[in-house]
Amino acid sequence: MFGLGKHMSRMREQAGLPPGTLVHIGEKKVEEVRITVIDYDGERFQERVVDSVEECFPYKDKPTTTWINVDGVHDVGIVEKLGDCYGIHPIVLEDVVNTVQRPKMLDFGDYIFISLKMLYFGDSKRDGVKVEQVSLILGQNFVISFQEDVGDVFDTVRERIRKGTGKIRRAGSDYLAYSLIDSVVDGYFVIFEWLGERIEEVQERLVTDPTVANLQAIHSLKSEMINLRKAVWPLRDVISNLERVESPLIRKETLVFLRNVYGHTIEIIETIESYRDLISGMIDIYLSSISMKLNEVMKVLTIIATIFMPLTFIVGIYGMNFRHMPELSWRFGYPVVLLALLTVGVSMLVYFRRKKWM
Amino acid sequence: MFGLGKHMSRMREQAGLPPGTLVHIGEKKVEEVRITVIDYDGERFQERVVDSVEECFPYKDKPTTTWINVDGVHDVGIVEKLGDCYGIHPIVLEDVVNTVQRPKMLDFGDYIFISLKMLYFGDSKRDGVKVEQVSLILGQNFVISFQEDVGDVFDTVRERIRKGTGKIRRAGSDYLAYSLIDSVVDGYFVIFEWLGERIEEVQERLVTDPTVANLQAIHSLKSEMINLRKAVWPLRDVISNLERVESPLIRKETLVFLRNVYGHTIEIIETIESYRDLISGMIDIYLSSISMKLNEVMKVLTIIATIFMPLTFIVGIYGMNFRHMPELSWRFGYPVVLLALLTVGVSMLVYFRRKKWM
Amino acid sequence: MFGLGKHMSRMREQAGLPPGTLVHIGEKKVEEVRITVIDYDGERFQERVVDSVEECFPYKDKPTTTWINVDGVHDVGIVEKLGDCYGIHPIVLEDVVNTVQRPKMLDFGDYIFISLKMLYFGDSKRDGVKVEQVSLILGQNFVISFQEDVGDVFDTVRERIRKGTGKIRRAGSDYLAYSLIDSVVDGYFVIFEWLGERIEEVQERLVTDPTVANLQAIHSLKSEMINLRKAVWPLRDVISNLERVESPLIRKETLVFLRNVYGHTIEIIETIESYRDLISGMIDIYLSSISMKLNEVMKVLTIIATIFMPLTFIVGIYGMNFRHMPELSWRFGYPVVLLALLTVGVSMLVYFRRKKWM
Amino acid sequence: MFGLGKHMSRMREQAGLPPGTLVHIGEKKVEEVRITVIDYDGERFQERVVDSVEECFPYKDKPTTTWINVDGVHDVGIVEKLGDCYGIHPIVLEDVVNTVQRPKMLDFGDYIFISLKMLYFGDSKRDGVKVEQVSLILGQNFVISFQEDVGDVFDTVRERIRKGTGKIRRAGSDYLAYSLIDSVVDGYFVIFEWLGERIEEVQERLVTDPTVANLQAIHSLKSEMINLRKAVWPLRDVISNLERVESPLIRKETLVFLRNVYGHTIEIIETIESYRDLISGMIDIYLSSISMKLNEVMKVLTIIATIFMPLTFIVGIYGMNFRHMPELSWRFGYPVVLLALLTVGVSMLVYFRRKKWM
Amino acid sequence: MFGLGKHMSRMREQAGLPPGTLVHIGEKKVEEVRITVIDYDGERFQERVVDSVEECFPYKDKPTTTWINVDGVHDVGIVEKLGDCYGIHPIVLEDVVNTVQRPKMLDFGDYIFISLKMLYFGDSKRDGVKVEQVSLILGQNFVISFQEDVGDVFDTVRERIRKGTGKIRRAGSDYLAYSLIDSVVDGYFVIFEWLGERIEEVQERLVTDPTVANLQAIHSLKSEMINLRKAVWPLRDVISNLERVESPLIRKETLVFLRNVYGHTIEIIETIESYRDLISGMIDIYLSSISMKLNEVMKVLTIIATIFMPLTFIVGIYGMNFRHMPELSWRFGYPVVLLALLTVGVSMLVYFRRKKWM
Repeated sequence: MFGLGKHMSRMREQAGLPPGTLVHIGEKKVEEVRITVIDYDGERFQERVVDSVEECFPYKDKPTTTWINVDGVHDVGIVEKLGDCYGIHPIVLEDVVNTVQRPKMLDFGDYIFISLKMLYFGDSKRDGVKVEQVSLILGQNFVISFQEDVGDVFDTVRERIRKGTGKIRRAGSDYLAYSLIDSVVDGYFVIFEWLGERIEEVQERLVTDPTVANLQAIHSLKSEMINLRKAVWPLRDVISNLERVESPLIRKETLVFLRNVYGHTIEIIETIESYRDLISGMIDIYLSSISMKLNEVMKVLTIIATIFMPLTFIVGIYGMNFRHMPELSWRFGYPVVLLALLTVGVSMLVYFRRKKWM
Repeated sequence: MFGLGKHMSRMREQAGLPPGTLVHIGEKKVEEVRITVIDYDGERFQERVVDSVEECFPYKDKPTTTWINVDGVHDVGIVEKLGDCYGIHPIVLEDVVNTVQRPKMLDFGDYIFISLKMLYFGDSKRDGVKVEQVSLILGQNFVISFQEDVGDVFDTVRERIRKGTGKIRRAGSDYLAYSLIDSVVDGYFVIFEWLGERIEEVQERLVTDPTVANLQAIHSLKSEMINLRKAVWPLRDVISNLERVESPLIRKETLVFLRNVYGHTIEIIETIESYRDLISGMIDIYLSSISMKLNEVMKVLTIIATIFMPLTFIVGIYGMNFRHMPELSWRFGYPVVLLALLTVGVSMLVYFRRKKWM
Repeated sequence: MFGLGKHMSRMREQAGLPPGTLVHIGEKKVEEVRITVIDYDGERFQERVVDSVEECFPYKDKPTTTWINVDGVHDVGIVEKLGDCYGIHPIVLEDVVNTVQRPKMLDFGDYIFISLKMLYFGDSKRDGVKVEQVSLILGQNFVISFQEDVGDVFDTVRERIRKGTGKIRRAGSDYLAYSLIDSVVDGYFVIFEWLGERIEEVQERLVTDPTVANLQAIHSLKSEMINLRKAVWPLRDVISNLERVESPLIRKETLVFLRNVYGHTIEIIETIESYRDLISGMIDIYLSSISMKLNEVMKVLTIIATIFMPLTFIVGIYGMNFRHMPELSWRFGYPVVLLALLTVGVSMLVYFRRKKWM
Repeated sequence: MFGLGKHMSRMREQAGLPPGTLVHIGEKKVEEVRITVIDYDGERFQERVVDSVEECFPYKDKPTTTWINVDGVHDVGIVEKLGDCYGIHPIVLEDVVNTVQRPKMLDFGDYIFISLKMLYFGDSKRDGVKVEQVSLILGQNFVISFQEDVGDVFDTVRERIRKGTGKIRRAGSDYLAYSLIDSVVDGYFVIFEWLGERIEEVQERLVTDPTVANLQAIHSLKSEMINLRKAVWPLRDVISNLERVESPLIRKETLVFLRNVYGHTIEIIETIESYRDLISGMIDIYLSSISMKLNEVMKVLTIIATIFMPLTFIVGIYGMNFRHMPELSWRFGYPVVLLALLTVGVSMLVYFRRKKWM
Repeated sequence: MFGLGKHMSRMREQAGLPPGTLVHIGEKKVEEVRITVIDYDGERFQERVVDSVEECFPYKDKPTTTWINVDGVHDVGIVEKLGDCYGIHPIVLEDVVNTVQRPKMLDFGDYIFISLKMLYFGDSKRDGVKVEQVSLILGQNFVISFQEDVGDVFDTVRERIRKGTGKIRRAGSDYLAYSLIDSVVDGYFVIFEWLGERIEEVQERLVTDPTVANLQAIHSLKSEMINLRKAVWPLRDVISNLERVESPLIRKETLVFLRNVYGHTIEIIETIESYRDLISGMIDIYLSSISMKLNEVMKVLTIIATIFMPLTFIVGIYGMNFRHMPELSWRFGYPVVLLALLTVGVSMLVYFRRKKWM
């Protein structure tokens, strides 16, 4: 997921084309585009999967709040038709189909464009974190949302609309947009909880087993963190701009909710920063564990050498072939030397134990 | 207390719920919710523990200053009823029962919501620092405070109200809120004094005994610091916003006191920063202590090897079995060689002493 | 390309001259200056290579949009004449012919001067990244662009004008200037994709083969990054200023496109920052790989020494020439000693395997 | 002076007291409080040491400029009486007697409160740098200054008033306050000169003698720098606020002088930053000096081992007891082997000298 | 030049004096003060060296532009007289004679004071970079410049005035001031080119020869960089303030030139920052070169030990004096053992070559 070159190479596909030319950039994650329309106000509620994009057009002029959700943005034709109908600037549609951009927020007066990154697990947690772009277009009485894949982060929002719980049915499109952003940000917490656990796991493995493999595990965590940071960090400005945009599209009652989700974003960013701190601390621990191991090895070497070198020297003396070496013919020369060797060896051991080398 | 994943996992419990749904997030720290009401003005003073939350409602319309303190926020029903009576926005109540948020301050015109983190020791200092969320709602003539546990940081404020010392009885609800914030911040100093002592302790142990265990002690200090920083840092903005909010709820006389507590917060933050500096300096000392130890070990090895290798070589020469080795049959061959060995050994020792290796 | 001193030495050539004196600073990259004029509006389109600079002058007063592209800025006379005709301030012309400046944007009311850096590969990717200065002068109905070499980054823009695709023929000179900037920024993505691949390449080589040569490869990547950063970073301010300049030369419709290219610039800058993070992480990996290798070597040494030192000591004992050494005359003395040697050696090996040193 | 815990513990003494309660925090540095009054205008001048604080009261309503200097702030009664007479807010008096606060500046309309840190040496430079809090209250026609000890940094100001040199006698209380601040800041230069010398001293010792003791000397310098930084850094804001406060108490003529002392403060801060840079560079030098020493030791070991191991092996060969070893009975076997040993040894030495290991 | 303590000690000389007292701080670099006056307008031009400062006074009221250049500021009397005549505030004159201040810019309405640092080489490049303070006072029709020494950085400006080339004779005093600042900044490029070359030089030496001497060369480069940064960095604000000062003294036409020199300053600052990056990268290379060298040494040791320890053990076996060692009496025992020794030795060498240790 986090290949360095890949990201850029997709970006390049568009290089040289006139701005506003819709080119899908990114992986095609779903086979067929699926469009669902949810239309509601305080009393009524309607939900349907439409077969062709044209079926969405009549909702444009209805006073009810309409939420058009598009799963899959690789079919640029569909995106273009929808954009034409709702009067969306081509450059926005270009951003919708370019799934490798950083989160942004643009105010066009009639509508506001918001793009952010959804984080979720693949089929299993083993597959790591997936990043998907979610684009929102917030109009007077509609929200159009684009996802890359058939996701389920928005299911709780759908459920709330269906059941009519909370204030979502009574509030307008701005509250719907807020709810969608909020559910994306809520999803971050799940991801970062899992990352926190992985960091702790690696940390434990590291001290007991400081291998290069584990160092690379840290570094892959670190670059994953760099990538998630790139996905989350700009959200801070996006939401902060939403708060201050003073657009008639965002009512005063919704501001307090945006302020709330802004707080959550700050919390996520602070979490990322402390994870980075922890990770760089782990590299310290790793490097010093290696040093400690080297120290241990060196001590063993030194103890062995320090004990046996003098002993070998002593036995070497009595291996000399001088004719006149009185000790050699002494009756107890041999046991005395053996005793001397033992004494030297043992006193060395005692010395090392005192020095706490053993 | 500072488990990485735990914090996040609690946050997740709320993911997907409509905003304004009250869900208690965090540990349930006290069995039963306890509500105390203190009602006073310059002349009168009344203090009581109420049995049901409804007993608090009549105080709403009294002109006197009312302080309702709620110990325990896990019973969301109580929080909700109190909030309804005093006209508090559901999103504020959500923040009250979510105890793992960062400190914040929100101005709703009629009332101001302030949430901050109280730091205190558990039953003994051995248990480490505990973090508890304190929420304050400051209205025209009331302050509602929520704590997670039956704490005693506010006891000095209670005492001052009871005794009528200082200006607290004559000043209004804003001064009461300030007093509560001030006592929370005062509590920080106690905690950071203790942390400073622990840092010095570890520092001393580190130089004399650079083990991985001590390195981990540093790193646990470091991540504790990261966590306390996250609790304290946002307070700076909270209080600075309080100063500049220009709400009629905060009178001009109280501003000078807020400025004072703001200064204390800055001081705490600077202390945290210098502790961080110190801790990263300790890691340097640690790493170089390890290097020094390795150096010492290597020197011993080198001295031993450098002394005994030449000596062993010399005795090896006279252990050769050549038929024609005139020295072997010399009368004083053996003592001369012994003397030579001694000379070589001693001169080496002198050399090393000169090189300051011993 | 990234010689430290060279850059400065060129700068110096101008030191001491009065401001506004045109001196070409930089390499002469093309033999002859080539001037092409493209003149168009919604209906008409004309493209020609002019022989002398004077042929450009008549276009000045035509209402159509004129794009004058100059390849090669070493002939200061041509630049001066063109500048005189279009009423350009001498200090701007000085910036045009000084090709070692940082990107900048200056608003002179009648026209806006923009200078930026174009990145491209030499004849082959082996030659590395080349940096070329592109200067744009945006007037009411003209854009003058200066390049150092006959480049082709602008070819896609030319093609679009020729074919009349997109809105370029209908939009004015500001949209043309935007298109040129956009194609320069698009070119960055190609370069940074290639750099990302090179970083990954070096990273892989590094772990398997931590030599000083590879460390220097990292450092050359790092200083290349520093240089590209210097070329790209100021662009952020240039485009941000263009957005906010409130000049009548830039129409409101063009702003949304500038905002788009601004987003791309931010993305490039963030990519540079994460590359820098990755590179500094690689140095960590490198240093610890060296330590690991040292550890491995030390272990081999220690194992050898620890096994053979005691063995050599034992055989030394039985090489002593004492007259009274009963073992020497034992029938099975020799095989017993051999067996003892074997036992000692094997048990050491077992010990090391248990300690995971082998 | 720089104990971590001590600072905090003093702060704690006040925890829980109502704000405005005067509690002296800090060491009692002088036995008896000494109050001196200097009263002057362009013509007249009077200086006296008063016995009781009440003697200061009559100066309040005199049109002349009055400087009341209080040495010793542990007697809170005196501070309180003085404050009452001059109408000072209790929270200011609290700051005056709390000597462990960070520098601050508060504008109360009628008067301005400034607190800063005076740095000076103890009885000898050996005692290190002492930090003392100086509080100034600047009113329309008076300045009250509080010091912890009987100091002499202000003597030059006193002298100037006595002699009537410079403009001090003609200028008002704001110029007096400026003069006092200026003399405190001038004192910093003396301290930082001395610190610069100490840094150079340690730096020299470090390269020649990289011991852990010297590393700790660096770290004590570093934490001293952290502490001095905490004392000086906030001064920047204090003086910058004074410049911009737009109080009638500070006349326009005085602003240029404040700007001057502001420049000095910036200079001190930049000096601190470059000292910090230097100190962290020293740690690099230290660590690499250790590595170099280890390298040197290892080389000696390797040279010794590499020379004597082969030699010992050769002599070992001729120590074998094979019956059929023709060399042993050669006439010149022994001298030939000795020559061979010499050749091997010398050629090794030559090899090492070529490799620059010796 | 960059002694830590010296700088401060000079600053101290002024400590305690009343502000506005002129005390020369810094080295006396020239014996006698030399004053030159250049007076010009579009038509006329006059240049003379004056003998006494009084000769400058008549120029004050002439409508022509007057440039008074003072070489040498140690004679405070001259500075004072000149200041009195032109109505300069004493605090400015104090800054003029205090040559160890940071660059600053002060607007006094009637005149603007600018102080900056001139960098140049001593008599030869070997002497290193010299820093000299240049002070400019820009008035309606005059510029007074103060230098510490008889310098020649301004010669090109003088030449342009003499020859009347460029617009300098027609433009006013603000353009003259700009020209002087510009020539100072141009001089920086020469210095930083030389520094870039020195960095490259040290870098090359470092890899081939990682000695502590070279590390100290890096650190001296680093602290030189810190010092030059202190001289150049504030210039950014100085020029940026000049641009925005909105003084009638600086005409709109001159602003574009100031913006140009501002760009150069930014370029110099970015160069400093990338040099700092490079230097800290060099320390990494240095440290890892040391590690590599240690590795190399350790490998040699390990190879020697690993080859000779087993061999010595084998010959030791046959040096034992057991009576019953059948091999000893074998006919080909000796050659067989020699062959075995050779086999062991060679197979070890092959093993090491495979492991790439040789």
